[in-house]
Amino acid sequence: MTAFKLGTATVFAVAICSVQALAQAHFQNNLMPQPAEISFGSDALALNSTFAVEVPGVSDARLTDAIGRDLRRIEMVAGLRHAGRGVAGTTKLVVKVEHVSAPVQTLGEDESYSLHVTPSGAEIDAPSELGAMHGLETLIQLVEPSGSGYVVPSVTIHDTPRFHWRGLMMDCARHFEPVSVIERTLDGMAAVKLNVFHWHLTEDQGFRIDSHVYPELVAKGSDGLFYTQQDAKEIVSYARARGIRVVPEFEMPGHSTAWLVAHPSLASGTPPTEIRREFGISPSAIDPTREATYVFLSRFLTEMATIFPDAYVHIGGDETPAPDWKTNPRILAFMKAHNLKDNAALQVYFNTRVLKIIAHLHRHMMGWDEVLTPGLPKDVVVQSWRGEASLSNGAKQGYEGVLSAPYYLDAMRPAGWHYLADPIPASSDLTPNERKLILGGEVCMWAEHLYSRTIDSRIWPRTAAIAERFWSPENLRDVDDMYRRLLPTSIELESLGLSHIEAEDAGLRELAGTEEIDALRTFASAFEPVSLHDRAHVQHTDQLTALDSFVDAVRPDPPSRHWFEVTVKRLLADPTGDTADRAALSAWFTQLSNTVPPTRQQMLTSPRLAEMSTRADQLLQLAAMGQQALHYLADGQKAPAGWKTRQTSTLDEASKPSALVRFVFLPAMTDLVNAVSE
Amino acid sequence: MTAFKLGTATVFAVAICSVQALAQAHFQNNLMPQPAEISFGSDALALNSTFAVEVPGVSDARLTDAIGRDLRRIEMVAGLRHAGRGVAGTTKLVVKVEHVSAPVQTLGEDESYSLHVTPSGAEIDAPSELGAMHGLETLIQLVEPSGSGYVVPSVTIHDTPRFHWRGLMMDCARHFEPVSVIERTLDGMAAVKLNVFHWHLTEDQGFRIDSHVYPELVAKGSDGLFYTQQDAKEIVSYARARGIRVVPEFEMPGHSTAWLVAHPSLASGTPPTEIRREFGISPSAIDPTREATYVFLSRFLTEMATIFPDAYVHIGGDETPAPDWKTNPRILAFMKAHNLKDNAALQVYFNTRVLKIIAHLHRHMMGWDEVLTPGLPKDVVVQSWRGEASLSNGAKQGYEGVLSAPYYLDAMRPAGWHYLADPIPASSDLTPNERKLILGGEVCMWAEHLYSRTIDSRIWPRTAAIAERFWSPENLRDVDDMYRRLLPTSIELESLGLSHIEAEDAGLRELAGTEEIDALRTFASAFEPVSLHDRAHVQHTDQLTALDSFVDAVRPDPPSRHWFEVTVKRLLADPTGDTADRAALSAWFTQLSNTVPPTRQQMLTSPRLAEMSTRADQLLQLAAMGQQALHYLADGQKAPAGWKTRQTSTLDEASKPSALVRFVFLPAMTDLVNAVSE
Repeated sequence: MTAFKLGTATVFAVAICSVQALAQAHFQNNLMPQPAEISFGSDALALNSTFAVEVPGVSDARLTDAIGRDLRRIEMVAGLRHAGRGVAGTTKLVVKVEHVSAPVQTLGEDESYSLHVTPSGAEIDAPSELGAMHGLETLIQLVEPSGSGYVVPSVTIHDTPRFHWRGLMMDCARHFEPVSVIERTLDGMAAVKLNVFHWHLTEDQGFRIDSHVYPELVAKGSDGLFYTQQDAKEIVSYARARGIRVVPEFEMPGHSTAWLVAHPSLASGTPPTEIRREFGISPSAIDPTREATYVFLSRFLTEMATIFPDAYVHIGGDETPAPDWKTNPRILAFMKAHNLKDNAALQVYFNTRVLKIIAHLHRHMMGWDEVLTPGLPKDVVVQSWRGEASLSNGAKQGYEGVLSAPYYLDAMRPAGWHYLADPIPASSDLTPNERKLILGGEVCMWAEHLYSRTIDSRIWPRTAAIAERFWSPENLRDVDDMYRRLLPTSIELESLGLSHIEAEDAGLRELAGTEEIDALRTFASAFEPVSLHDRAHVQHTDQLTALDSFVDAVRPDPPSRHWFEVTVKRLLADPTGDTADRAALSAWFTQLSNTVPPTRQQMLTSPRLAEMSTRADQLLQLAAMGQQALHYLADGQKAPAGWKTRQTSTLDEASKPSALVRFVFLPAMTDLVNAVSE
Repeated sequence: MTAFKLGTATVFAVAICSVQALAQAHFQNNLMPQPAEISFGSDALALNSTFAVEVPGVSDARLTDAIGRDLRRIEMVAGLRHAGRGVAGTTKLVVKVEHVSAPVQTLGEDESYSLHVTPSGAEIDAPSELGAMHGLETLIQLVEPSGSGYVVPSVTIHDTPRFHWRGLMMDCARHFEPVSVIERTLDGMAAVKLNVFHWHLTEDQGFRIDSHVYPELVAKGSDGLFYTQQDAKEIVSYARARGIRVVPEFEMPGHSTAWLVAHPSLASGTPPTEIRREFGISPSAIDPTREATYVFLSRFLTEMATIFPDAYVHIGGDETPAPDWKTNPRILAFMKAHNLKDNAALQVYFNTRVLKIIAHLHRHMMGWDEVLTPGLPKDVVVQSWRGEASLSNGAKQGYEGVLSAPYYLDAMRPAGWHYLADPIPASSDLTPNERKLILGGEVCMWAEHLYSRTIDSRIWPRTAAIAERFWSPENLRDVDDMYRRLLPTSIELESLGLSHIEAEDAGLRELAGTEEIDALRTFASAFEPVSLHDRAHVQHTDQLTALDSFVDAVRPDPPSRHWFEVTVKRLLADPTGDTADRAALSAWFTQLSNTVPPTRQQMLTSPRLAEMSTRADQLLQLAAMGQQALHYLADGQKAPAGWKTRQTSTLDEASKPSALVRFVFLPAMTDLVNAVSE
């Protein structure tokens, strides 16, 4: 019936918290992120439509809206017809806040809340509506079935985030994303308590925010795909309603082709005449040596400050080889006159000038790793895409920093890998004061290989696991339990309108030209996309490449991957013993093999599927290998001489690039094969 | 592997057109709607990335944009990396238009085009870009796989619509639809050559368009869910870019609770104090006897005319019992003074006054059936929701009309039923001149029981079949072939971003709380939602009811329904002969039975699924019944005495309401049972 079976759900307790009455309670802790402190009772609040909502403390429009939205979600998740419209005297949801937040959400603003649930009601207490909104998200995640209805377990939670900066960077420049995609992304972020939407708005491939001062920027630099100022204001407002700050990024002086197409006089050398379709690093750069550059940037950033109220502005600053700075006589003369010995020094000069503009706007400047060069003023936040070491190095020099290196989603790594990467690893040698400079982390979703129909599965649900890393206590490192909780979290994200699950089937139907994809769906569950690097290397993708292949349909880290890994691990702990796991694995191999003939049949009428032909052959071989390994292991039997060599060779072949996808189960399959004696 | 198998695709020829070389060609005619004239050649144009696009005649921004969009779709459907960027000398797509359309698309504007495809290229000729855009849609639908690539068959098409008014009415008032939902709906409409988006913007349940003149309308009448004027202008522009007119509807004098909540002085009696949550007919009505009413409406409609450029304005006019008109002494005195004998006469007075306002704005007035009362000025278009007879009656009196009665999607009828309903049936006794008054038809999508996550499957793909009725020659009435073509059309609509297929699985995952829905998916394929009437009767749905039950997940007229119907029909034509159909039916019954135990298991942990318990029992009984019938029929064997009585009783039970869904296969199952001898 199903492609894989999940292990029996286990009752979970965060190591640091007290857990009561687990013996009596059958409640699951599906929360993601896990709260700082949680303590379950033994009974529960039964949910029905007649509970009343009370807001006895301070109330404001943001809180009222959030309660309205969240009641709707409670109705949905608990199958209630109407929720929260009871009258005084019935069961209550009380939401009590002490004060209203500042009009512009600040870094470090208190996001804490308490949640107390008993059979007679639920109460959320928070300093401001910011924490209360987090408490409501937690409450929704606690709803679970019980008998013929739904309940919220009795629980006491005291929660506050580990890091203040918990972001998602979304590149809306290489491929444009419609406003509706951003809105559903913000819904997902709020559900897992992320609080910074870092909006990458300009690139070599496009300038995506309208400037009334410089209308040519989008007129010439966007292919007509850009956000109006009204759009941007609505995004800012939508984000704020969900407790999320919006940090805009305007890339300079590199990644700036789109600026230069619109305003050639800003260029360091011969200006580009059209936006760049190729990805990678462009030689174009804004000229840091002309006063007109700073007049321009000052006017532009001043205008943008009217749209983006956040205290931080990101100026990019990465990947600026700028060959013109080494050859343009005017620039070389400027460098000599200002005692700037190389490109790095010139970029520090540029950064310092831009920092002044930004400071004048009462904003802080943020930039990628490369901005961290000697002479950089201390009031700059460094976003590290090079690694924890780089971040740590910055902190030792006194710079605030945000970690992104291990959270690049386009590396197509499993959620568990990202999950274990910590902005302040246990091995960190930072002093307590230096640690305070690590503000948090940001997930990065670069857009070379995605567009509006595929972006969700690249972001979700993996980002939920990373969000837990940013929010929850650092000693929470149980990958298997994270994966257990990721499954319901993924369904919750889907119910918010994210298409990360459904888009796979839609892509497969489009490829096959039919609704009949039962076999193809299971076939696809064995594959995931290769990394950005591997794909770019093979496909030489550019901005105009149609993203409609098999690789675009399948999801990174599909549920089948972790299921196979843990099932093999369990089996290998007692290879001749447990039969349930063996039966499940064997059934899966059989099911995968059975998908190949009908999928081959579809390849005949769908040439777009035919590139999977080699992978189909390999899938048959791998499934047979798995069955043989199970057979040998069950009997404690030796494989014939040469068997392992042949399997290793097959595994090697299967690990090579083909059709831009890779098998999700090769590491565990290798373990299975290696466990066989020969 | 699959829940059902589709019959072998048949080469299809429209009766009225000449079809050449069918023997040589293996091309499928998947076009929907079918063109007026089509003639296939025997060879094809091979598609690769290097063809060049030429626009040698008149060009304008609308055409350029459409070509850009459509090239992207050709890339997607044909798996090309980049399309249409070849240089002169390569294969060509030529798009030649004679003149640019008027700035505001008019009713009756020439939408014709010709499409000529040969192995060396394709050419579209049209009077204006309006026809050219239709030709591009046809071209995309012609793309099909061939060998290792994709081709467009050689073909000559001369096409023009049968009716000028081919609309979809979307109720965005009872439940609000985000702009992105409307945009994807417009994409779908353009793909099947619909050309009127009738936008139902006001209702008892909400006022959805912002008025700067009367800001209270949305402030008090919308729950904050409304379209800004900028939103509306963007919708108008988005629609125009796709050859679609936007006709706004502002309901008056009935269905007007939201107006009256905002402006109590407009009410005929005691004004309502909040928008109406219940559906059905409200007693509230705008007061037609006060001059202030017309001052208000004049200012409002004058403002709306700046947003909606179309020549038609819909004023609703239906379902206005207006009890206050029979009791309010002031209104009664007015009626007496003006010699208005009853409510109908007062409404004619109202309509005549509003017509003057609309005429002053150089617009035509449109209204639902009820406006057609003695004394109605002739310059009013009547939209018939009561039936062909009502429409025909209007035409005989000299009124132009648009048929909607048989195109109510909320009746949850199969596409084939809608398809056969004709705005001018073969039996019509209208004269040629009266026939000219029948402008066309409109699909109606009322929103009592849907919202943004479920609307697509209610509209699509059934609307594609109706669109063919409005566009194609009247003698095209082959339901089976329509269903054959509906399958690829449905995939095309999905590729445009419509969620009509994927939303079912998303709904099932939400209900089951897991991704493991293989069994549940097949189980669900046996069901469809009951009609609006049946649902309202059982559920007493109101605007605040959560629409998250099993009925909301499943689709009306799923592909399994017609497959079962035709397969049974074919089997019964030769009940002891054909074994492929028997095997397929038997396999389906087995598959359906097998879904019941795992689905029951999911009911245990998902109380929201448990209401399907009775249906699950019945499914087992029906599947067993089907197997028995197949068995008796195969052997020409008699069933034991009483068997048919028992089956009929089971069928009767299964046809009764339960869980707001009905079995999709009861009529064909009844035929199967009745074919058995006893």
